[in-house]
Amino acid sequence: MNFCSQCATTLRVEIPSGDNRQRHVCPSCGAIHYQNPKMVVGCIPEWEDKILLCRRAIEPKYGLWTLPAGFMENGETTAEGAARETLEEAGARVEMLGLYSMISLPDINQVYLVFRAKLLHLDFAHGEESLEARLFSEAEIPWEDMAFRTIQHTLERYYSDRKTGVYGFHEGQIFHKPR
Amino acid sequence: MNFCSQCATTLRVEIPSGDNRQRHVCPSCGAIHYQNPKMVVGCIPEWEDKILLCRRAIEPKYGLWTLPAGFMENGETTAEGAARETLEEAGARVEMLGLYSMISLPDINQVYLVFRAKLLHLDFAHGEESLEARLFSEAEIPWEDMAFRTIQHTLERYYSDRKTGVYGFHEGQIFHKPR
Repeated sequence: MNFCSQCATTLRVEIPSGDNRQRHVCPSCGAIHYQNPKMVVGCIPEWEDKILLCRRAIEPKYGLWTLPAGFMENGETTAEGAARETLEEAGARVEMLGLYSMISLPDINQVYLVFRAKLLHLDFAHGEESLEARLFSEAEIPWEDMAFRTIQHTLERYYSDRKTGVYGFHEGQIFHKPR
Repeated sequence: MNFCSQCATTLRVEIPSGDNRQRHVCPSCGAIHYQNPKMVVGCIPEWEDKILLCRRAIEPKYGLWTLPAGFMENGETTAEGAARETLEEAGARVEMLGLYSMISLPDINQVYLVFRAKLLHLDFAHGEESLEARLFSEAEIPWEDMAFRTIQHTLERYYSDRKTGVYGFHEGQIFHKPR
């Protein structure tokens, strides 16, 4: 971030009055350009004893499997965002069953929010960002070809919970750098 | 958003290739300036049968009461952000007990994440952004002087849950415009 998006002046990095963190501040118009974490919203679409996974057609992690998920957009709720991503990536309509996991990734400034969801039809079809969308039983899950640790972690908890018959809510964090 | 923060060129609003939404795009360096919702993280600090509220010393809602909460920062987990806000606004150290509510506010592009928390000491002291920090029993809660609907909604559910002895996890949304 080099220039003010309001007035194009070269930004300074400094601690604004009344703040305690360095921000990008415009010395001309005074705008403070905050940077905050982003939410990734997605779901586990369930159909009988199977769940729907997508194989990525884009980088990062081209060719690997994941749950339908993506960046939450302005103007939507978390559940609406998860449903939109599922429609875009897997051509699948779902009904949200509740938030299942929240995983913070502080080193890349993201928070994953994954819902359990009921898949509403079988004529789904992958979107442009996926190579394929497919239902998997637990025995068929491609654990060695999962795109993201957050999703792998969420699915490990999901199958562990399923054995007990009770799906809890799981909070976690994944660090990319030592603390 | 008028100018590219990378190269100061005047931005265009257009749908990038492979996207389906209008974005601020730089015609010179090609940067796409996404805008996404922000998380507000906070907690309900509990001490015996009381909870800790703060009275706001800043706008909006100067002089009204709320839970310690604020925008999540880069480089922290959701729970760390909630603990930091509690320390900054109420001078109070807390131990998080788990996520209690997630409320989407799609019309202002925010998601509130409120934890239940154990207050660890009584020598708290309000920070610069608060006029005072005080413990309230349920009968003392200043319902008519609450700053935010999200917090009021969360506390109503909290006291309703407390009667049953079981604190669930609550998802909700608050709209500022008709849908």
